[in-house]
Amino acid sequence: MKFVLAPDSFKESMTATEAVAAMQRGVLSVFPDADCVGAPMADGGEGTTEALADALGGVIVIAPVHDALGRPVSARYGYVDTERLAIVEIAAAAGIDLVAIADRDPRVASSFGVGELIGHALDRGATRFIVGLGGSVTNDGGAGMLQALGAHLLDAQGQDLPGGGAALARLDRIDLSTLDPRLAGTTFEIASDVTNPLLGATGASAVFGPQKGADPAMVGELDAALGVYSTVITALTGQDVAARPGAGAAGGLGAAFLAFFRADMRRGVDVVMDAVHLADLIAGADCVLTGEGSIDSQTLNGKTPLGVAEAAAVHGVPVIAFAGRIGGGAEVLYDHGFTALVPIVQGVSDLPGALADGAANLERAVATTCRLLALR
Amino acid sequence: MKFVLAPDSFKESMTATEAVAAMQRGVLSVFPDADCVGAPMADGGEGTTEALADALGGVIVIAPVHDALGRPVSARYGYVDTERLAIVEIAAAAGIDLVAIADRDPRVASSFGVGELIGHALDRGATRFIVGLGGSVTNDGGAGMLQALGAHLLDAQGQDLPGGGAALARLDRIDLSTLDPRLAGTTFEIASDVTNPLLGATGASAVFGPQKGADPAMVGELDAALGVYSTVITALTGQDVAARPGAGAAGGLGAAFLAFFRADMRRGVDVVMDAVHLADLIAGADCVLTGEGSIDSQTLNGKTPLGVAEAAAVHGVPVIAFAGRIGGGAEVLYDHGFTALVPIVQGVSDLPGALADGAANLERAVATTCRLLALR
Repeated sequence: MKFVLAPDSFKESMTATEAVAAMQRGVLSVFPDADCVGAPMADGGEGTTEALADALGGVIVIAPVHDALGRPVSARYGYVDTERLAIVEIAAAAGIDLVAIADRDPRVASSFGVGELIGHALDRGATRFIVGLGGSVTNDGGAGMLQALGAHLLDAQGQDLPGGGAALARLDRIDLSTLDPRLAGTTFEIASDVTNPLLGATGASAVFGPQKGADPAMVGELDAALGVYSTVITALTGQDVAARPGAGAAGGLGAAFLAFFRADMRRGVDVVMDAVHLADLIAGADCVLTGEGSIDSQTLNGKTPLGVAEAAAVHGVPVIAFAGRIGGGAEVLYDHGFTALVPIVQGVSDLPGALADGAANLERAVATTCRLLALR
Repeated sequence: MKFVLAPDSFKESMTATEAVAAMQRGVLSVFPDADCVGAPMADGGEGTTEALADALGGVIVIAPVHDALGRPVSARYGYVDTERLAIVEIAAAAGIDLVAIADRDPRVASSFGVGELIGHALDRGATRFIVGLGGSVTNDGGAGMLQALGAHLLDAQGQDLPGGGAALARLDRIDLSTLDPRLAGTTFEIASDVTNPLLGATGASAVFGPQKGADPAMVGELDAALGVYSTVITALTGQDVAARPGAGAAGGLGAAFLAFFRADMRRGVDVVMDAVHLADLIAGADCVLTGEGSIDSQTLNGKTPLGVAEAAAVHGVPVIAFAGRIGGGAEVLYDHGFTALVPIVQGVSDLPGALADGAANLERAVATTCRLLALR
């Protein structure tokens, strides 16, 4: 029996790598001779750096950068030397969790630290990036990132704009002549499940601005500022990125990647699956195990288990998903490639207990499942 | 696929019959053409009456009898007309749950109501009884039961003893000439997992007396009184029942059944399995599903799932057990015929919620299990 073990992290309970280990213990307790291939997974969100660094034999690098408010922060990213690949979550620098609710202000919050992070990886030798968009506290269209990488965003007087989304209202032109030349030879695989455009009612400011601290008036101000930004981009590049799906991701960072970098934006789980060559691993397997902290109808929104199930279905390999919680209505997933959805809790429990017992419960649930599979 | 569905009740959540129904829904949701044979199970304890009455197509009869303190109580027993079979739990009359803790006094508590219950069933036409021992609040050696059925327990002055365990200290002889003559043609299958003898350190008074309200002095008094009772029985019948395993069950009711009735005492689950011909049902099945509220290493003490697993193992049929809680160390059960132990909870939950959702969770867990079996 060959098993592919491809779980996401179980949030607040175990990393994807820890979940792989628990799954492997469970499988081997029933099938001691099984061939277990671990592929810690992620969907571009939290945990992507660690999962991919682990899966690809990379390391975790700590870079001294700045958060969205300009304060020093130690940001982690993954680096795989053999592939000259950097794995970056923009939240490591521009993350919403780094800024207290009272301090959030998308008018001044800047993605400058994301640019610093990319620069740090370029210095290390990266020629390829996997970038997880998501969890940002910024709404600056990626302007800060461009500035950190050498671009100049100038007002009508030729003065550099300060950081933050509001200043873009005064943007007159963007000078890319000083942009880090290494970027020309660098590719970016952008992992984003957000498909919103940059502007308007479904744009970055209107949809994600409020959770970043924008009141209704601010949303209007920020959307108008990004409108100016978009006009300048179109004038400069000849392409209208504002309307492209995902341009509004991460406060418009998506737009900057699409307009100025050699970037391709896809569903996060697909980016991760390709990076670890999951389809190749699955092709010869008898069974795929995946999982995540919670599985329910929301899993259809591009979560890791869905991607894994779709990939397994292509090869006709059964895929069994484990979760701390199988939510009501999760049965709809059975139409999307899943063979079975298995809850891992072993009885009545409170959340802290369930999180603490996560690895043991997962191991046990996998072992029980293997006992049923052994009836084959 | 032929499934035998043989769960016990899930205490405080669903009866065995309700559990069978939930299991059947789960199986049919995955295998619409499956042959599901339901056999609601029990182990001689709480729920045995309902499970067997349901399994055998009987009815529930309500008999006006007396509890251990002589108070009127409506006791339920099962009756299967076609087999002239009565199913009696002695706790329905002499039960500990019927007497408040402060009122428990094994010196006076009497099993009289158990005799009334048997008499009621004899009047109905019963020639065969299945009797669940367990949950008694009495320690009278079944003296009260004998009195209710016409026997006289006399002191040296030829006076009838009052009810209760303490009075047996004055027992001189037992007059069976007036015992209900129908008992001679009646068989009793006694379901008891208690194997304690009547007397001594491992006897009824010492082991079970305290929970029935006996302090240490009372335990000595009661044990001595049962000693007198035992001596009289031996003189009368020529056999020493006191030492027989199970004579100490239900405050010595076991001894009375063994001494004076055509009784056979066995492990509860075996009695129930035989009554529903479970072995025959299992013989032709592809899979057996059982379950109980909680499964752990204590399940080895003759609980229903153990009996079902043993029976299934004899025929080489896989048996899957479901429970609201799979306790730590339950893996030891895998050495006793179980194929898999499946918890039914679907996530973090408190006990009231888990009990309320029991049937839905069981149905879902069975469906998930069937999806895994479908990989066969």
